[in-house]
Amino acid sequence: MILVCVGSELLRGKLNTHVSHVSRRLASIGLEMNEECTVHDRLPEIAAALRRALENFQVVLVSGGLGPTFDDLTREAASEATGRPLSFSKPLFREIQAKFRRARHRMPPANARQAYVLDGAESLANHAGTAPGQWLDLQSSPRRKPGSRDLDSGPPHNKAGRPPGCVEDGFRRNDGKVLALLPGPPRELYPMLESAVLPRLKKIYGAGARAETHLHFVGVPESAIDDKIRPIIHRESHASNRIQFTILAHLGLVDLDIFVSAATAARARAAAERISRAVRRAAGKAWYGSDDAFPLEKVVGDRFRRRRATLAVAESCTGGMLASRLTDVPGSSDYFLEGCVTYANTAKVRELSVPESLLKEHGAVSRPAALAMAKGIRRRAQATWGVGITGVAGPGGGTAKKPVGLVYIALASKIRAVCRAYHFTGDRGAIRRRAVLAALDLLRRV
Amino acid sequence: MILVCVGSELLRGKLNTHVSHVSRRLASIGLEMNEECTVHDRLPEIAAALRRALENFQVVLVSGGLGPTFDDLTREAASEATGRPLSFSKPLFREIQAKFRRARHRMPPANARQAYVLDGAESLANHAGTAPGQWLDLQSSPRRKPGSRDLDSGPPHNKAGRPPGCVEDGFRRNDGKVLALLPGPPRELYPMLESAVLPRLKKIYGAGARAETHLHFVGVPESAIDDKIRPIIHRESHASNRIQFTILAHLGLVDLDIFVSAATAARARAAAERISRAVRRAAGKAWYGSDDAFPLEKVVGDRFRRRRATLAVAESCTGGMLASRLTDVPGSSDYFLEGCVTYANTAKVRELSVPESLLKEHGAVSRPAALAMAKGIRRRAQATWGVGITGVAGPGGGTAKKPVGLVYIALASKIRAVCRAYHFTGDRGAIRRRAVLAALDLLRRV
Repeated sequence: MILVCVGSELLRGKLNTHVSHVSRRLASIGLEMNEECTVHDRLPEIAAALRRALENFQVVLVSGGLGPTFDDLTREAASEATGRPLSFSKPLFREIQAKFRRARHRMPPANARQAYVLDGAESLANHAGTAPGQWLDLQSSPRRKPGSRDLDSGPPHNKAGRPPGCVEDGFRRNDGKVLALLPGPPRELYPMLESAVLPRLKKIYGAGARAETHLHFVGVPESAIDDKIRPIIHRESHASNRIQFTILAHLGLVDLDIFVSAATAARARAAAERISRAVRRAAGKAWYGSDDAFPLEKVVGDRFRRRRATLAVAESCTGGMLASRLTDVPGSSDYFLEGCVTYANTAKVRELSVPESLLKEHGAVSRPAALAMAKGIRRRAQATWGVGITGVAGPGGGTAKKPVGLVYIALASKIRAVCRAYHFTGDRGAIRRRAVLAALDLLRRV
Repeated sequence: MILVCVGSELLRGKLNTHVSHVSRRLASIGLEMNEECTVHDRLPEIAAALRRALENFQVVLVSGGLGPTFDDLTREAASEATGRPLSFSKPLFREIQAKFRRARHRMPPANARQAYVLDGAESLANHAGTAPGQWLDLQSSPRRKPGSRDLDSGPPHNKAGRPPGCVEDGFRRNDGKVLALLPGPPRELYPMLESAVLPRLKKIYGAGARAETHLHFVGVPESAIDDKIRPIIHRESHASNRIQFTILAHLGLVDLDIFVSAATAARARAAAERISRAVRRAAGKAWYGSDDAFPLEKVVGDRFRRRRATLAVAESCTGGMLASRLTDVPGSSDYFLEGCVTYANTAKVRELSVPESLLKEHGAVSRPAALAMAKGIRRRAQATWGVGITGVAGPGGGTAKKPVGLVYIALASKIRAVCRAYHFTGDRGAIRRRAVLAALDLLRRV
């Protein structure tokens, strides 16, 4: 299976998030994306990529290039690559017209292009945009339709520059394959993937029962987690093509999905559980949650809610990022009482009752300052736990004794207080994010 | 030019950030990435992708698969695809050994694999990791080295499964092409790209003088900005291949880079300025900064610093995210005094002196509440401007009168106060991020 992404913007700096999303969703039904390829919005290049894809892969998913403007050329390229003409579909045209009517917009004439369908293709409804998708089953769809041209006698769109015989060749090779044309914008592509593509693929290629487990890691360097769990992933995925992994690692956080298919649901579950145990054992304390117990701020929140504990945070170098992450969780008002960004020393003194003498003696970036901040915000908000973070996020402000990356994180309850010093690497943004992760990591353990 | 990304993790959920970065850096020297392709860590698939790439493109950049473990197979695949044997390089081996010695680690035997170089290739120093890169100029490099095998008589690594004659074929076609093998981890790839790849490519393909401009947009839907500037991008990039654009759009923010090459520096600058003016005119108020005047929080910060104004923020639904963005800017302590996350109503009353009666009458999500928060935090912090944000981020908590996505943002100075109501769409995270962007957008205009 290959995903062909069409869009010049993807080769000019725009981040491609399709591959990550689509590959994870495919894995959820036991299918692996074998290759991905991105091409410009240019007819010959799209057509060449599709021909190559149809020669080498059973399933060809294409995203992008279905819009109404002149640089949306996927339909035409698919017609060239398959040798199937495009036909104007009146019902489809009326649907597109109706969409504009409902939105009370005049339909630009260019949108009529979206009503053209590959001969034999089924159109896929797009509930979030105007461009319908297309599903072409190259085995079961009729090769000749009454009134259409005799395709075996030659391609209808043969243009100069294509190697002779290419379409006929492609035709024979394409037999028994699937070509799906899908829209480019995520808000159109993702729902169509769920409602039309995954169910169809599951029907054709799906077999047996399935089970899945999702594991989440934090707290040691990403590469260290990767090193620890990689041998298991390789051993298992090489031992059986019924076991699939997807991994998403970003800034010290790693998410691992395990998908297993087996003859019975019980066997699939057992295998998923066996692998999950092995991975968790290998990762040690870095593992913080499974399945829906994530992200980290939700794990922290669930823990606080369970214990009927409350939380208030005072931040200096992270400047509100910890409060922001904690309140990213729906329902966080159950345990999150208050946050305070005391950037200036005067704010630390006024808002958190940090003694001025303490700041003078030890400096704002110090263990005593972090502890005083944690205790101050806890008292003020009347919370079970207070958190204080202070550090040097950089790029300026570092000294030999207190270098950029030094961060103190303190936790204080009525009867206990702890403080840890960290030395984070990376730029200002990375140091701040790592400090927030470290604070959340401490909070999940209290 | 094609970028081949090697790594199963990229087809199993991990986000590929290489394509975005490499394409933007290529554009900075006037080159366009024509295609991108991602393959698994499997020898036949990498070799096939490289053969196809060498047949179709002048420059083939490959990232990933240069590590020491069994699934790092790019070297071997490149040897298959080019028909060039891999030779063990003693000097390279000693360099790798020295790296481990400096880090006081024992070198695992597997790392010896990283000392193998394609015949005729130049090795590229890796200052951030152990895997050296390789640069193979298929025109100028010697086809036969004394003592090496006669390559024309047959490939040295011929394995079953490859079409007969493929290597010899590839050989003739490869003439005059460049194959560069680069490491996968960004912290190794990016520096090597800057120090070794871009200068070499510039020397071979670069011509004339160059100029660049970077434009940044916010405040109207991403698609609306895209619609407005797209015709200009298409017109200009079709009119001349000496004009390159890269675009990076994410969550309502759009960054556009314009690169122009011309016979003289003055002409390049003039063209860049002409296009920049046209784009700014088309985008209207959505344009907020050029070149280094970005991101948005820096534009806001610069404005406050210039005016010697200070700032304090009180956040409810955004939960610290605005403070976090503002303090993301180095030196933000010059104007950012204090932030306050008043999630609970009691905190709004206690910390911001919002009258309890006001919250009872209008609710916490209301225009009067946002204004009272802005005024309260301004007074408390003695700041020039105070910001108050309150809204329904969802997913719960929405009513018919106050639906999910309704957010009030207020700005208050000693003599002025404004409040705007917004109706944001998307999930909780998107609503929060859009609210923060809207607040920053208001702040850049005060």
